[in-house]
Formats: sequence, structure tokens, C-alpha cells
Amino acid sequence: MGRMKGIRGFLIDLDGGLYVGDTAIEGAHEAIELLRIQKYRFRFVSNTTRKCRRTIVERLSDMGFVISEEEVITPPVAANAYVKNTGKEHCYLLVTGDAERDFEQAYSCNDGEGIDCVIIGDAGDSITYNRLNTAFRHLMKGAELIALEKDRYWMAPDGLSLSAGPFVTALEFATGKKATIIGKPSEAFFDRALYEIGLSPGQVAMIGDDIVTDVAGANRVGMKSILVRTGKYRKDAVNNSVIKPTYCIDSLAHLPEIL
Amino acid sequence: MGRMKGIRGFLIDLDGGLYVGDTAIEGAHEAIELLRIQKYRFRFVSNTTRKCRRTIVERLSDMGFVISEEEVITPPVAANAYVKNTGKEHCYLLVTGDAERDFEQAYSCNDGEGIDCVIIGDAGDSITYNRLNTAFRHLMKGAELIALEKDRYWMAPDGLSLSAGPFVTALEFATGKKATIIGKPSEAFFDRALYEIGLSPGQVAMIGDDIVTDVAGANRVGMKSILVRTGKYRKDAVNNSVIKPTYCIDSLAHLPEIL
Repeated sequence: MGRMKGIRGFLIDLDGGLYVGDTAIEGAHEAIELLRIQKYRFRFVSNTTRKCRRTIVERLSDMGFVISEEEVITPPVAANAYVKNTGKEHCYLLVTGDAERDFEQAYSCNDGEGIDCVIIGDAGDSITYNRLNTAFRHLMKGAELIALEKDRYWMAPDGLSLSAGPFVTALEFATGKKATIIGKPSEAFFDRALYEIGLSPGQVAMIGDDIVTDVAGANRVGMKSILVRTGKYRKDAVNNSVIKPTYCIDSLAHLPEIL
Repeated sequence: MGRMKGIRGFLIDLDGGLYVGDTAIEGAHEAIELLRIQKYRFRFVSNTTRKCRRTIVERLSDMGFVISEEEVITPPVAANAYVKNTGKEHCYLLVTGDAERDFEQAYSCNDGEGIDCVIIGDAGDSITYNRLNTAFRHLMKGAELIALEKDRYWMAPDGLSLSAGPFVTALEFATGKKATIIGKPSEAFFDRALYEIGLSPGQVAMIGDDIVTDVAGANRVGMKSILVRTGKYRKDAVNNSVIKPTYCIDSLAHLPEIL
């Protein structure tokens, strides 16, 4: 139990950590309840770039979790903080779904002047030549390129589909600029989560199912990491990796055992 | 004059070499006429990926040049030859304009099975998420990625605009594949031109205004090169380059002087 000494808070990955598909991990409700009772701090984190906090919280509510919007941190939330902290004011958004609701100060405008950052997420059908070209022109005029993620593709219901990564790469190639990546496992993401939870890296453990985005990302900023054997966890991927979590537990339900 | 010894044919760059904008280079008509009279072989080459041969020839005709379609070699023409020579049969085309007329055997089909190559050119508004994703899925099933060019951007009438390069890069990033580049200065392009002109590299000189795509590309395959001081020629770019043309002449009109 010594390895959790000094831990006062947790970042908990949503998809694969708290639930899989539309189903809560068995015992997850009780584990979260115990954290609340024992006064641990925690935030829920996700790399989704298509949904706003409200939509995520409503979905969690359908699964029986009573979680507030402030307890959820996603790339749009982290990007919004990054935009504010770096003094930027006018964003050109290339996102889809209702994610743009989380960009309170940002606005999207095809003909806008004074755009100082381009934010690109997994934008799906919102990607058109015209919108990419508009983003490109803003970048050539000095705007910063901010990527909510840089994944290659994801498994959509109808087959493999391009994520934001290819389009981020396209804009990097066209402009010669390098994107600032905001989602996990970037430091920007964990820095924001630590700021919101109000603890130092040594006081927080990241709980998730991904050896790279969760475990390696957390370890790099000095956090402890707990790999759960749910969601996308595969034994081989972990055994073949040089990345080692602080703990490995069968599921979130087993968290109380190592507190 | 010794450096042109053994030269029996020429590749002549269209835009910047034979004309600029909509205007023929002064003296170009006479130079071409002289080549015909003296029985030199020649082909006109261009990196345009939007126009089919017929359209190019009609435009040349408007400028007073009587040139046949067979005398014009563009990336679509070279790609078509590449597709045939490598035994491919079913292409997925991502091009715009009337360039697809030059892909005689190829066809574009969003739901097609058995696509064995994806050909991407400067496709402008024809680029949509859905079409890129379809191309991506064909590539993941084994199709080869063929790029008509890999430029970053070009100067459209309304401002800088993305060329094919960013989208080629996007598909390379998504699939982990490397595109086969077909336009100048690729070897595939010059190989095709040499095949069509029916001469060996040492018998042909490339005439053009671009130190990289024309001069370096030609030199690399063993051809001689003649840089013309028209079109995009800039003295600085040439002086600062390690690439050296065999000859430098003021314009195509001066070609007869070095024959």
C-alpha cells in the first residue's frame, strides 16, 4: 500500500475506466462514492473532442453517476484554458458535435480578421477544403495551431475513419508550423487537470486503461498511475511495453483495496 | 556550343518556359518552328494536375501554337502510364477540373471494391471528409497511394491555397504509407517523358524556369538542363543554389543560338 502514500486525488479516465460502451464498470459507483466519503479529490478525464461537458455529464447521469460539469476535463476544456492563459482571443474552430459549447470565448468565423489561433479536433464531416484553407490562411498570417488530439483514425460504426491527426499533419506540412497538442498524453492536458484539482503531481494518481495516453502521460509529469484491466486493456500491450504503471488493478472497483 | 553535342530532343516546360500567364514568350513560336524544321524531337511538359491534355492543347492553340495532345506530358498522363505499367486496374481518383479525362482506364467510385490505387492531385473543392476517408479506407485495404504532386500551396486568385501536398501528407500520416510522387521533379515523370520522346537521357535537354523541378529533376536522371530567365526565374534563387543548369538563356527564343 506504500506506493499510494501521499496520494490525495485521482484523475479517472471515462471511457474504459468508468464505463465501457454505455455500461458502467461493475462496482464503479461504489468506488466513486467511497472517494467522496473519504474526501479524496478527483476529476474525470477523457480525450473526446466531439462532446461538450454538459453532454458528457448527461450521459454519465444515464449510467447512474452524479457528476458535475466542473468535474469533467476534456481537450476542449483544456484548450479553452490554454487559449485564455496564452492571451489569445479569437479562435477559428474546426470541430464537430457540440464540443464548441465548451469554447466560451472562442468563435468561429470564415471571414474573420484577427484570428490568433486555429483549434482543430476530430471534425468529421465538418472538414471541407474551404474550411481547411481558411484555417491555413489564418495560420500563415500568424495564428497558432492547436490540436485537440493527433490520432490517426478511429473505429466508427461504419469502419475506420480519419481522426484529427491527418488534418493536423496536413496543416503542419502546408504551413511549416508545429501544432500544440492539447489532449492526453500532452503535458498541457495533465497540467490543466492538476490545476483544476488543486494538487501537485506527486499527490495525484491517474487511473486509466491506456498504457500510453494514461500511464505514460501521467508518469511523465510526475504523477502516479494505475492501469485498469478494463476497456482497451490488453495484457500483451502492457507486457511488451517499457512503460510501467505504479499499480495494475482489475477494475476501478478494486481501487479501495489500494487506498 | 559543345555542351549541346549529342542532344537530339528537348522537354519544354509550358508555364514560364513557353508562355507566362496567357501570353506566349516572344520568339517562342519561331524557336519551336525551328526545332521542327531541324528534326529535333520535343515534348511539352507541365506539372498541372487540373487540366487534361485536350484543354491544354486548346489553350496553346489560342496562343498560336499548333501542338498535338501527344506532345504534352502532365502528371495525369505520367500517372496513367505508371498505373498501366504496374498492372493496376482500378483507381480511386481525387482530382478536380477535367484532369480525369486523361485517366482512360481509371474510374472513380465511392463504394467500389478492388480499388488498387488512389490517385490524388490538386483537388480543391473536390476534397471532402467523405472522399478523403474513402481514399483512406482503400489505402488501408492495400491500395497504393499515387500523388500527382506534393506542393504545399499555390497562389490562387483569392489568395494562398492548399495544393495536393497537405492531403497527400494527411493520407501518409493516417496509413503509414509513403506516396509515389508522379509530377516533376520525380524520376517517374522524366522516365515517362523519355519513353515517349524515344531517346536516352543523354540525348535530351530539359528547358524550364524552375531550378528545382526542371533543372535538378532533369540533371538527376542524366539529362542536360537549360534554365530560361522567364516565368518564375529569379537570379537570387539560382545564385544561392548548388544546382547548376547546363546552360542559362534569356528565353526560349535564344535556344537556336546554342543548338
